[in-house]
Amino acid sequence: MTGQFAIALDAMGGDRAPEMVVKGANIARQRFPEVHFLFFGDEKRLKPLVDKYRALAKVSTIHHTDQVVKGEDKPSTALRAGRSSSMRLAIDAVQSGDAAGVVSAGNTGALMAMAKVVLKTLPGITRPAIASFFPTLKGESVMLDLGANVQCDADNLVQFAVMGNVFARTVLGVVSPTMGLLNVGSEDMKGHEALREASAMLREFKLPGSFHGFVEGDDIAKGTVDVVVTDGFTGNIALKSIEGTAKLYAEFMRATFKSSFLSKLGYLLARPALNALRLRTDPRRYNGAIFMGLNGIAIKSHGGTDALGFSNAIGVAADMITHRALARITEDFGNTAAVSRPQAAEL
Amino acid sequence: MTGQFAIALDAMGGDRAPEMVVKGANIARQRFPEVHFLFFGDEKRLKPLVDKYRALAKVSTIHHTDQVVKGEDKPSTALRAGRSSSMRLAIDAVQSGDAAGVVSAGNTGALMAMAKVVLKTLPGITRPAIASFFPTLKGESVMLDLGANVQCDADNLVQFAVMGNVFARTVLGVVSPTMGLLNVGSEDMKGHEALREASAMLREFKLPGSFHGFVEGDDIAKGTVDVVVTDGFTGNIALKSIEGTAKLYAEFMRATFKSSFLSKLGYLLARPALNALRLRTDPRRYNGAIFMGLNGIAIKSHGGTDALGFSNAIGVAADMITHRALARITEDFGNTAAVSRPQAAEL
Repeated sequence: MTGQFAIALDAMGGDRAPEMVVKGANIARQRFPEVHFLFFGDEKRLKPLVDKYRALAKVSTIHHTDQVVKGEDKPSTALRAGRSSSMRLAIDAVQSGDAAGVVSAGNTGALMAMAKVVLKTLPGITRPAIASFFPTLKGESVMLDLGANVQCDADNLVQFAVMGNVFARTVLGVVSPTMGLLNVGSEDMKGHEALREASAMLREFKLPGSFHGFVEGDDIAKGTVDVVVTDGFTGNIALKSIEGTAKLYAEFMRATFKSSFLSKLGYLLARPALNALRLRTDPRRYNGAIFMGLNGIAIKSHGGTDALGFSNAIGVAADMITHRALARITEDFGNTAAVSRPQAAEL
Repeated sequence: MTGQFAIALDAMGGDRAPEMVVKGANIARQRFPEVHFLFFGDEKRLKPLVDKYRALAKVSTIHHTDQVVKGEDKPSTALRAGRSSSMRLAIDAVQSGDAAGVVSAGNTGALMAMAKVVLKTLPGITRPAIASFFPTLKGESVMLDLGANVQCDADNLVQFAVMGNVFARTVLGVVSPTMGLLNVGSEDMKGHEALREASAMLREFKLPGSFHGFVEGDDIAKGTVDVVVTDGFTGNIALKSIEGTAKLYAEFMRATFKSSFLSKLGYLLARPALNALRLRTDPRRYNGAIFMGLNGIAIKSHGGTDALGFSNAIGVAADMITHRALARITEDFGNTAAVSRPQAAEL
């Protein structure tokens, strides 16, 4: 899509909403002047916040609703009782074509359930997946699924590869992404049946980029491939293991620099360089879990993020819209579907 | 076991064997004066190495063999053709009762296959598991299985919990270990059927320590529990994801300190503190993958380790022997078996 487009924002989702959402939109506006913002939420609170930024107010529309999906609401409750919620109305705006994408920092389960029911999956995609990107030794990589599907068959994994490939091209800017299937060894015989089947199918496909084969857990941080494909159980545990380890090492470093007078002084001298590193690995830079495979762009921002983090989640949506991510998934999947089915049956 | 005991060493396994093995034994000897070392390998090379350390020579016996399992040998080849190899003879020494445990830095697959065939599993244990321990925010935790079993049922997971519990008590020195099942969420309904079943069974058991319930990927580095129980597929990927991330952050730090004159100076000032941190997270400290559930203690040292790392793998074996790890597994498993079977059938 070129030219102007709208992004729907669940203005009431997230720990620091609605202030953080409005401020985040104002940051994103500077990077994406072509975007029109549709805010869904409490107009009385939203109007003065939006009006603080004149340039933002010009490209914004506020849609009032009192109803909010709470953090503790079950997906089924949100689906049934949240039809007028800020989250649901923002998703509805994508379905009706008023917006090209939706961003919410609210309840993940509710967002996923509502987005699935309202937007439905793209043709050829059986199950949507959650994708996210993160820093590696070589740059940035994307991994999926991160928790939407606890069990996956070979077809699901192949679909995830197609979607991850498009994400790498549209958001990470990789022209010809490499893809790998997460496994316990790189040899062809390793792992589950579904992995071996998916590997055989991906070798046959004419996707942009190339299929690397199996990758192992340490390949994620190495950046061995641009797209790490896995089932939602393994992907969720791998991602959280990585996040936990990153926090552990940050904590170890903090304690180390505090441990003596000399190390405190050393910290002061190295601070500009350490701040640059902090910026590079800042979780706000990688904010935005993408619900891939839906017939509409839906981004889940971290609930605890601030305006800068939220603006990056909006940025992911804007990149995907600008670079026609959904159309590309359908195109790529059309090219692979012919190969996929008979292959899977033969194996 | 108290008093003297012997540990069999595959003197020819590992990148820097046999020098590294002999030096490692000499370091371990100082920590464990009650250990007698049985070296299996090329006597012509081993004798002068051992004789360099008078105190070591006094507590060592060399058993000559020319045959060596190579790094690239398949487990099946090693089993069939490696009956006189240094690795096999060292394992045989445990089976015959000449040694209380075996340590090898050689081919992992071959060691696992030979140890399974020769030592067999403990009564009540269906499948052995690979365990390892690592630093956390709170101290140290153990995780298993790390790759021996790609698919696991609830009984397997419960057995791993029993074995990990014993490891935490005998090697990590935790009196009353907490145990957790690795999952994608902490709620009871999350994850695979096998996990929910195992969780129900572990809640019933009278194990020393306590069952925490489900833990997530970030709980590993947090040290939320002393024992992280998982299937070999997930465990392998979680551990390698953690290792890869630790290396990534070490590399980020190295690059950061090198990035400017001031940061280099800062590094020099903080160096003593940074060295202390390096020591704390030194992979050699956590060297030793434990094949748990066999009727004999078998430790796989990292192939690329040095003498210090190898001495720590010997240390793990010595701790397990001294604290009667195998007998404790059998005792604990006896206490739980009565609960386990009917529970599993009901679910």
